[in-house]
Amino acid sequence: MSRYVVGVDLGTLSGRAVVVDVADGTERGAAVHPYRHGVLTQRLPDGPPLPPQWALQDPADHREVLRSAVPAAVRAAGIDPADVIGIGLDATSCTVLPTLADGTPLAELPALRGRPHAWPKLWKHHADQAHADRINALARDRGEPWLARYGGRVSAEWQLAKALAVLTEDPEVFDRADRWIETADWLVWQLCGRETRNASAAGFKGLRQDGRHPAPDFLAALHPRLPELLAKVDGPVAAPAARSGGLTDAAARWTGLPVGTAVAVGAIDAHVTAAAARAVRPGRMLAVLGTSTCLIMNSDDCHEVPGICGVVRDGVTAGRWGYEAGQSGVGDIFAWYVDRVLPASYAQEAHRRGVSAYELLDALAADQPVGGHGLLALDWHSGNRSVLMDHELSGVLVGLTLATRPEEIWRALLEATAFGARTVVEAFTAAGVPVDELTAAGGLTGNRLLLRCYADVLRRPLHVLDTDHPAARGAAIHAAVAAGAYPDVESASDVMGAPHRETWYPDPARAAAYDDLYAEYRALHDHFGRGGTDVLHRLHALRARVTP
Amino acid sequence: MSRYVVGVDLGTLSGRAVVVDVADGTERGAAVHPYRHGVLTQRLPDGPPLPPQWALQDPADHREVLRSAVPAAVRAAGIDPADVIGIGLDATSCTVLPTLADGTPLAELPALRGRPHAWPKLWKHHADQAHADRINALARDRGEPWLARYGGRVSAEWQLAKALAVLTEDPEVFDRADRWIETADWLVWQLCGRETRNASAAGFKGLRQDGRHPAPDFLAALHPRLPELLAKVDGPVAAPAARSGGLTDAAARWTGLPVGTAVAVGAIDAHVTAAAARAVRPGRMLAVLGTSTCLIMNSDDCHEVPGICGVVRDGVTAGRWGYEAGQSGVGDIFAWYVDRVLPASYAQEAHRRGVSAYELLDALAADQPVGGHGLLALDWHSGNRSVLMDHELSGVLVGLTLATRPEEIWRALLEATAFGARTVVEAFTAAGVPVDELTAAGGLTGNRLLLRCYADVLRRPLHVLDTDHPAARGAAIHAAVAAGAYPDVESASDVMGAPHRETWYPDPARAAAYDDLYAEYRALHDHFGRGGTDVLHRLHALRARVTP
Repeated sequence: MSRYVVGVDLGTLSGRAVVVDVADGTERGAAVHPYRHGVLTQRLPDGPPLPPQWALQDPADHREVLRSAVPAAVRAAGIDPADVIGIGLDATSCTVLPTLADGTPLAELPALRGRPHAWPKLWKHHADQAHADRINALARDRGEPWLARYGGRVSAEWQLAKALAVLTEDPEVFDRADRWIETADWLVWQLCGRETRNASAAGFKGLRQDGRHPAPDFLAALHPRLPELLAKVDGPVAAPAARSGGLTDAAARWTGLPVGTAVAVGAIDAHVTAAAARAVRPGRMLAVLGTSTCLIMNSDDCHEVPGICGVVRDGVTAGRWGYEAGQSGVGDIFAWYVDRVLPASYAQEAHRRGVSAYELLDALAADQPVGGHGLLALDWHSGNRSVLMDHELSGVLVGLTLATRPEEIWRALLEATAFGARTVVEAFTAAGVPVDELTAAGGLTGNRLLLRCYADVLRRPLHVLDTDHPAARGAAIHAAVAAGAYPDVESASDVMGAPHRETWYPDPARAAAYDDLYAEYRALHDHFGRGGTDVLHRLHALRARVTP
Repeated sequence: MSRYVVGVDLGTLSGRAVVVDVADGTERGAAVHPYRHGVLTQRLPDGPPLPPQWALQDPADHREVLRSAVPAAVRAAGIDPADVIGIGLDATSCTVLPTLADGTPLAELPALRGRPHAWPKLWKHHADQAHADRINALARDRGEPWLARYGGRVSAEWQLAKALAVLTEDPEVFDRADRWIETADWLVWQLCGRETRNASAAGFKGLRQDGRHPAPDFLAALHPRLPELLAKVDGPVAAPAARSGGLTDAAARWTGLPVGTAVAVGAIDAHVTAAAARAVRPGRMLAVLGTSTCLIMNSDDCHEVPGICGVVRDGVTAGRWGYEAGQSGVGDIFAWYVDRVLPASYAQEAHRRGVSAYELLDALAADQPVGGHGLLALDWHSGNRSVLMDHELSGVLVGLTLATRPEEIWRALLEATAFGARTVVEAFTAAGVPVDELTAAGGLTGNRLLLRCYADVLRRPLHVLDTDHPAARGAAIHAAVAAGAYPDVESASDVMGAPHRETWYPDPARAAAYDDLYAEYRALHDHFGRGGTDVLHRLHALRARVTP
């Protein structure tokens, strides 16, 4: 008798569900539901305009994924819903919302519907940097012990900065919020009627370390009323893939699944992808290569790695220390290049050949020997997340000549992101967390030149995940564990993880040549990023000062 | 009774003649003659292919300018040719050719017509760098006293490197060459039947200093037979605007001018433009802004300015010390940008507006406050002529973000060339040669944003020359002096120089803001150009090593 699990992934623009066979991980059916409101950056639905750098979402869009994508995936799989034994759910993070004690989003209260702070703040809501700056400065001054767990700096994207913004800028919303909760946890609550915080988001995005949140007196120093936040986030915390409860009658009606079906605690998309990539055992790093890059790894030990996003107990799987690092600009640098730099003649040539601009550039750049373009770039167009954690840095390009061709700049940018990834891997290694194996997932794994380049630069085999639904499949694996089909995520991942579509092996000659270029990259990296010159900060400050 | 002079300018792709009123400098008529063979870079006419970096010209093309453009200009002017009292001629330099003792170009001998070294080598013939490297190394080792007059380094474009290439690579051509002569001097010889070397080219391009060429033992150390070159370049040398002779019967027939019309000694195009720009009195700098930039200035004193192209007695006008410096890439960087970097959407928008890409970029960039783009560039895409004299440097661009727009990169490149110009001006000032006034000529003076930027960055009024024929007009002014209408170029230039089309005054606020950016430019300049890092050289070497 077959048993199935359903994985649900709440992305930035759409949610999806996938039905996975518990026995071997086969994906039996999937469905995608685009959000009606997508990302709210300009104005609220029927509401006021939003200031710059805001990014909100509609909780109704998230809820609708459960009602439409889940039953559609089950139908597409052609299975009997009665054979589904568990459901798991991940979301982008930190995407966080205020709710009443019963889980009602404040954004759905008629009285608060026109108030931006009442809405879920998407991970890339970037309006709260000033609050994050205060948090970092105070944490440094006070020597808060948790700060080193986050590489020395916390992000404006995380729960605390976003909450401090609510309290400071719309205290009435803060008052009405009984709960301040990650979207994944809120949806799991909707499914099983019971609120559980997942240890991963609580740690990586909520600053919870060793079972404790930041201390009340630290919070009070930021705002006298901020300690009230602790009551809004407190509650049961569970390790990844724990059973949060069973589907309620209402949730069973939405999803078409049996009442009581096991519901796993919520999860973060990139972290749950590690399970899909069979990259949860220590030393196996997952690289989710997309607009930005997320690097995830498990270890049995806790090391404070300078410049990474965080290390969290139970952060990726139960009982281990999960590490996350990231590159803030990767795919978006390539998109910027094609949009802002690629000349008309190339756009025309791509059109003529019937290929994308990316494919044309790859084809033109692929055969040049390493260093043949004479260029070197720093991949900081969107700042640097790891290991410098400095969002005021910017991109650098050296070696331009009158003979420099577009595909050469393109390739130098690809290489720069590979050098950036190597910098992170070396930071892990230097801190005593060796990286033995590397698996890539994400939208950029369609780019063969990039994969070859990463394998060469990182000097290790690069496995490429073969699934169209990496996060949702990971959530399904969590569901299988929550349903008791496997004792832990590790063993479930071994069986249910996706196969490798291919593996790229480094070419010794190219890798050796890249070693030289990487040494140049590191020298530039340290010169521009570690105080050799502060020109990038001064340019940033000047731009901010003179821009109206 | 009116009196006229004719100025002839031999450019890179065409020659032109202009008829100028001696009384007030009015341009009465002009004509342009495009060269039939343009620049020979691929193969000789009906001859063998040329190696990379070769650039030759056909002496017949130059001669034809005298036969077609001169009479056409006189006709266009509607004057009586009998009223022409003088003719002057300038050419690009160093453009140098081997001839027989009677002036016959070796390229016109049937036996040598198929031999590339027999042809005139255009200024931008860049195949002889290895010979120049040997010359520089030896001159440094021996402490040759003339080396400092050239800022410490001589160019592969100049007479000696090009001659050493002939001797080394085709000694038979070297043997047959009775004379080794600048194109301007050769054409003047054709006009008046008498060979005279102009002191400007002899100094700036022929290494003649204090009346002497490099010593025979120095030349012998480069090649045992190289001292034979001295006999091929020796002969009468005259200061600018001296009378070389009168038109011969044959030349009178070619040009349609009276036999015996005064012929001025030859001149270098950028130098003669200083007369047209009324920039020949000490402290007045001329900036010829084109593909590359040439900076010319006169002084009563000789100073060795580190990193400039040269200082030569009688180099610009008789009796004074003429200085030349240069930026190797200016307009060609802008052309590279539009060709290789400007995105399709901008090309389309320019087309829609019916403007050039340059005009669109200027319009979009003009209103941004200084520093608003957050960018800084080094203008070394074609190496650096002054003050680093390093052709293996390359361009740098820092401060890129995902928000960086094409017009911002464009403006940063304009600004970089302005910073480069300021670096040269400051080198002059620091060496005791103050720059009091600045006049711009050349193709880039059509760019208003660039002119405004130069005035702001250089913190001084920028006069813009109002003539379509700056060099030819300068040659005509020399002709007026040679004909005795004025005692010297200075007084002729005062009367016959072109008016200013406009003057750009620095805006104090923008200038102050640019001071800060210039300080950043200088820091980057020294870091990448003066040994802070050798990454640009290493990238250059790597590119050369791996490129087939």
